[in-house]
Amino acid sequence: MAAVLLEGKVVAEGLKAKVKAEVEALKAKYNKAPKLIALQIGENASSAVYVKAQKKVAELLGIEYELKTVPGSTSQAEAEVIIKNLNKNPGVTAVILQLPVPKDIDAKSLVNLIAPEKDAEGMHPQNLGRILLGQYKIGPCTAMAVMELLESTKISLYGKEAVVVGHSEIVGKPLALMLLNKFATTTVCHIGTGERGVLPEHVKRAEILVVAVGKAGIVKGDWIREGAIVIDVGINRVGDKISGDVEFEGASKKAAYITPVPGGVGPITTTILMRNTVELFKEQVK
Amino acid sequence: MAAVLLEGKVVAEGLKAKVKAEVEALKAKYNKAPKLIALQIGENASSAVYVKAQKKVAELLGIEYELKTVPGSTSQAEAEVIIKNLNKNPGVTAVILQLPVPKDIDAKSLVNLIAPEKDAEGMHPQNLGRILLGQYKIGPCTAMAVMELLESTKISLYGKEAVVVGHSEIVGKPLALMLLNKFATTTVCHIGTGERGVLPEHVKRAEILVVAVGKAGIVKGDWIREGAIVIDVGINRVGDKISGDVEFEGASKKAAYITPVPGGVGPITTTILMRNTVELFKEQVK
Repeated sequence: MAAVLLEGKVVAEGLKAKVKAEVEALKAKYNKAPKLIALQIGENASSAVYVKAQKKVAELLGIEYELKTVPGSTSQAEAEVIIKNLNKNPGVTAVILQLPVPKDIDAKSLVNLIAPEKDAEGMHPQNLGRILLGQYKIGPCTAMAVMELLESTKISLYGKEAVVVGHSEIVGKPLALMLLNKFATTTVCHIGTGERGVLPEHVKRAEILVVAVGKAGIVKGDWIREGAIVIDVGINRVGDKISGDVEFEGASKKAAYITPVPGGVGPITTTILMRNTVELFKEQVK
Repeated sequence: MAAVLLEGKVVAEGLKAKVKAEVEALKAKYNKAPKLIALQIGENASSAVYVKAQKKVAELLGIEYELKTVPGSTSQAEAEVIIKNLNKNPGVTAVILQLPVPKDIDAKSLVNLIAPEKDAEGMHPQNLGRILLGQYKIGPCTAMAVMELLESTKISLYGKEAVVVGHSEIVGKPLALMLLNKFATTTVCHIGTGERGVLPEHVKRAEILVVAVGKAGIVKGDWIREGAIVIDVGINRVGDKISGDVEFEGASKKAAYITPVPGGVGPITTTILMRNTVELFKEQVK
């Protein structure tokens, strides 16, 4: 059996249509649009790609988007003042700090400084805590994108064996909470699992498998459970090619659904950023 | 092999000594003691037991403790004002809302209203989010008590198979994050797991097993893995006796370590409440 491809583009299109309609309705009701500020410290080629994509999606959805670039020589203290001013500015409804930042800047403490009410990336501790409490409309973009891909299959997660490989703050841990909120039996694996030598056995029982490690082919094709849903979050450059954390060829023979890499989670995350922006706006205007 | 009993009292004594010494040092340095206010809405027999225990431990540790009782007829809006005033009062360094509250009161929204800086129970979303981020000194008392019991065995959690049964907001979910922060491979089971019929197989591979369901004997003795550490958080009244979520007799023959019920987690939680209070105080005075 060849797996059905879970194409991020398709899911993103559906989401965009919903968010666009919502923005239109909000504009009609409040005569005001959400406004997202992307703060970029210094110049960075990969960040420039993201910013361009963000701007395009924002414009498509009717969200105001402004890139605020400050010099790479900006100090931590100066960056803090900039964020505090964005927090106070009533004309700004959401803020994202573009990564990477120059090496002398502590990105984590800057992200923590963005007001939870304007936290477009859903990474403020308060917003993460709400995921644990099951009281959330926004969340980290990649974790939320994985949930959208899973939901696109229309398969209930209740009682399913879910295995997440990778326990990062932006994907693995928030995603595990989201899966638990849906009553999947959820296991999180990581380097400790790999070193113990038990990663294959955990992967083998996964009906829902999400891999977010960043190591090409760390999950072998023959570990995949027959009929599994496989979401590969990894984006690894191998020679001239981009490849995922899962060996695609072998895995796609056993899985029922699998994401292509690239083209799985990636195309959805920017749209989630915009949906987060709109959800924050709704709380602000209500 | 008969399991070693993990007695909460012993762990609590060690913690109390540490917290007491810390409070003394803080008093010497700042000429001020932490002050915990317990807000109780209406009268309640079981709450009265907790309050008495809290007062005793606080006094022993040099923490100021005040029970603030308001009538059961207090409205939600009035309770909100009381909490906001406690938040603003510089003489109050920590607040706990005693549960249960009268049925017309929404306890959850009141708990969310306690300032995160004064949240003695570690249940504010911001404090829960910090657990996910691995940046935490305080946390929900029962989850923190489980971690203390595990640490008392001196066994490294790195790469261990940890299974948590129960995915509540106060135990299962925050505990799972704490176990992940220690690099245990962590699985959370719940009603969805039980209905699927796979709870036994998850329990059987657990080297670290924590059960927090509230159903007497839901985990059978013969499911326990040889040599496991078993922490039973359940407190169930069965006839005249208190019994846990794990069948103790069978489990204690297979486990290497097991908590008695009662006498496991329970005796530690009040001390954790006080340690949380001291940690909050340290942030306030620094």
